[in-house]
Amino acid sequence: MKKIQLLIICLLSATITLSWAQSQDNAEMVRQVYDEILLRGEAYDNLRSLCKDVGGRVSGSPEAAAAVEWGRQLMQQYGFDSVFLQPVMVPHWVRGKQEVGRIVNSKKLGTHEVNITALGNAVGTGDKGVLAEVVEVHTFEELADLGESKVKGKIVFFNRPMDQTQIQTGAAYGLAGNQRRGGPSEAAKYGAVGTIVRSLSTAFDDYPHTGSTVYSFNIPKIPAVAISTNDADLLSDILKEEPNLSFYFETHCQMLDDVLSYNVVGELRGSEYPEEYIVVGGHLDSWDLAEGAHDDGAGVVHSIEVLRALKAMNYQPKRTLRTVLFMNEENGLAGGKKYAELAEENNENHLAAIESDAGGFTPRGFSLDVSEIAYEQIQSWKPLFASYDLHKFDRGGSGADISALKPQGVELLGLRPDSQRYFDMHHSELDVFEIVNRRELLLGAAAMTSLVYLIDQHGLSSSTSSSAGTER
Amino acid sequence: MKKIQLLIICLLSATITLSWAQSQDNAEMVRQVYDEILLRGEAYDNLRSLCKDVGGRVSGSPEAAAAVEWGRQLMQQYGFDSVFLQPVMVPHWVRGKQEVGRIVNSKKLGTHEVNITALGNAVGTGDKGVLAEVVEVHTFEELADLGESKVKGKIVFFNRPMDQTQIQTGAAYGLAGNQRRGGPSEAAKYGAVGTIVRSLSTAFDDYPHTGSTVYSFNIPKIPAVAISTNDADLLSDILKEEPNLSFYFETHCQMLDDVLSYNVVGELRGSEYPEEYIVVGGHLDSWDLAEGAHDDGAGVVHSIEVLRALKAMNYQPKRTLRTVLFMNEENGLAGGKKYAELAEENNENHLAAIESDAGGFTPRGFSLDVSEIAYEQIQSWKPLFASYDLHKFDRGGSGADISALKPQGVELLGLRPDSQRYFDMHHSELDVFEIVNRRELLLGAAAMTSLVYLIDQHGLSSSTSSSAGTER
Repeated sequence: MKKIQLLIICLLSATITLSWAQSQDNAEMVRQVYDEILLRGEAYDNLRSLCKDVGGRVSGSPEAAAAVEWGRQLMQQYGFDSVFLQPVMVPHWVRGKQEVGRIVNSKKLGTHEVNITALGNAVGTGDKGVLAEVVEVHTFEELADLGESKVKGKIVFFNRPMDQTQIQTGAAYGLAGNQRRGGPSEAAKYGAVGTIVRSLSTAFDDYPHTGSTVYSFNIPKIPAVAISTNDADLLSDILKEEPNLSFYFETHCQMLDDVLSYNVVGELRGSEYPEEYIVVGGHLDSWDLAEGAHDDGAGVVHSIEVLRALKAMNYQPKRTLRTVLFMNEENGLAGGKKYAELAEENNENHLAAIESDAGGFTPRGFSLDVSEIAYEQIQSWKPLFASYDLHKFDRGGSGADISALKPQGVELLGLRPDSQRYFDMHHSELDVFEIVNRRELLLGAAAMTSLVYLIDQHGLSSSTSSSAGTER
Repeated sequence: MKKIQLLIICLLSATITLSWAQSQDNAEMVRQVYDEILLRGEAYDNLRSLCKDVGGRVSGSPEAAAAVEWGRQLMQQYGFDSVFLQPVMVPHWVRGKQEVGRIVNSKKLGTHEVNITALGNAVGTGDKGVLAEVVEVHTFEELADLGESKVKGKIVFFNRPMDQTQIQTGAAYGLAGNQRRGGPSEAAKYGAVGTIVRSLSTAFDDYPHTGSTVYSFNIPKIPAVAISTNDADLLSDILKEEPNLSFYFETHCQMLDDVLSYNVVGELRGSEYPEEYIVVGGHLDSWDLAEGAHDDGAGVVHSIEVLRALKAMNYQPKRTLRTVLFMNEENGLAGGKKYAELAEENNENHLAAIESDAGGFTPRGFSLDVSEIAYEQIQSWKPLFASYDLHKFDRGGSGADISALKPQGVELLGLRPDSQRYFDMHHSELDVFEIVNRRELLLGAAAMTSLVYLIDQHGLSSSTSSSAGTER
């Protein structure tokens, strides 16, 4: 009996020692990752190049083609084990000439120019423009209550602001977003001839914010613009006094034929389980009004930095690590869908995918769209991140590009930077390199790299993984 | 026996219900605070006014006098129960004409202008300037090793960078700070004729960062400047090839006679324990190179917003709440010392003081320089803050202005915003209104207001408090 007790004690202390040593190793490696990236990180310089040498890069544009080549060459220069392109057909929407928007014949203002921008994927008015009375609504219900009699032949103005009391601005974006995505078709149902949508912005300023709209099947496609928050407030104020006010706008955007484009993939091959993949990704396309610095240049350079840093540290991954620069997140998700399709076709076993598509701000943690067992495993890593100011490891959506991998049982995670500033500049001309902070950007890359290291070392207890779970 | 059991159960459930109800009340009030400030907060507009109408405001300057009047009038307009000034004599340092700094007769660069700024409180060179060979060091030890033989008659160049691997930039500032504060006197010990200090900045750019230096007693005061990080790197590179390089600089700063200035105090009187004070404060003075937007305009408008919001919500405080705008934090701490002196003189029982002097960035939590029992009490409030992204309630320094209250046993707390961007602009010409984000600023005010509410309601279990502890 005593011998058995002794054996148990020995085994127990061996286990404790081992897991202590393992957690020491983990902590040390995380520290090394942060040191490498904070001292020698290249994400900030790479972002400058993507923003200044390539610039805004809407799917199908020459700039998007340049971005593909930029990403391919950069990852090749870093000497990743392989770098390849995944062909994918993408929509090709072009903005054309600068938009014109004006309040017409106001008693108070006369003819008054306002700041608008065409919504992505929208049809244009052409040179003839749209001129009509404006009817303001805040919800689809309000629109339905007005009905065809009060909407037909008019421009519908959706003016529900983002809710400032939401602490996570992403939640406020979600609550206001249906106006931009579904508003034009909803208005067209009742015979509207155009749509003005209040910019999905947390700021009060003169910058209109674009973003894609989605026309419903079998409903006439009507032109649609976003208006700056300041001008939305102005328009709303004037409408209170002059309800029969007319508005004119002119957009020259159009949807052209689909274009061949690419996801760009770089990988470091795994030494023990090369057939298991861990993906880090962001989207390479952006809107055209600025440089797509936070959205999603940050995610692109974060994802490249993960593999660059690990390689620079001479780290030998157990699993195959992939940086994926997805094409066409903004107005179609064709790249994300194609990636998932090919993963299935090629029988690739994807353990986990981590997306960075919420900006290059100081990181707060990760959102987890994962199985219960993976959730528990990730929670056990929280102490490793506490001194790096990462404290949020909550359930939540991960990222649009990787979401198509969900049906394959892939564990999905999203970098969650602080959200306060994101929607001030999102999809507007303010999203340029200069507003990205070097340390904030690098810390995001370090957080992702650390997490990839932990998943690579210990697996993730997913049902789809052959090797994981045993090594937790 | 059964009756006693029943009684115990009843008492227990009453207690549970009560504490549940109390925590519901707390949570509801915190939510109301956030709603008030995120929807109707005035801190951002107030900051614009302080930055644009008053501007930079070094102690003793006309702008500092304007800031005093600005604060007094603003708090009077808000209708606080009383608003008053506390006279205090402050140092009056003036920068004078623009500095000149140049590398002289470099073989590689010829004569090359660099970006410098005089350190606060430093003596000037006057028109004659200082021209001497440069000797570069990184630590005081290195300087001591060189000794008088290699330092006498030279300009000492302190070039130890802020440590980028520190996650909290304040820690890196602490580690590098002795070069600026003590460097000039340390160099003068060995006969140096001037000092150049690498700017205490996390950025790599062309902006020099000022900040006060402190001359030691009985050691000659020598002129001292900060050099931008880019030019520090340039100078260091050139020195490697040309160790006998000369440097010229000219500063026109001087210390004038002390000037009468003021702390500005506004208060809402307590209804139950008016003789117990809770202070929220920031410092009203700033450096002169910019507008003191983050340092410490943010703290000023945060502290005013706390009382404004509670008053606007018709909240009746139990204790007396005070907003204190301290004068002269940057180069003397005269205001903080005077406040503590008067508190003691007037036998004021200060329960707690909360300072905001780390910028208007997205808040992470509070640092706590408090008794064990207050520490535990504050930890019990953490769940109330979790959904507002406040997660750090750790021991640490609170704020320079309130530190003089420590000997009176006051519980000291400091707002801890995210630190990543602070030292990019701190004490440089970049610290202007435009780099402050509205939501981030308002969230800081909401965090402070919520904490003040909790302390006011429940007391703080300090040894100096008569009422607290019983109500936890």
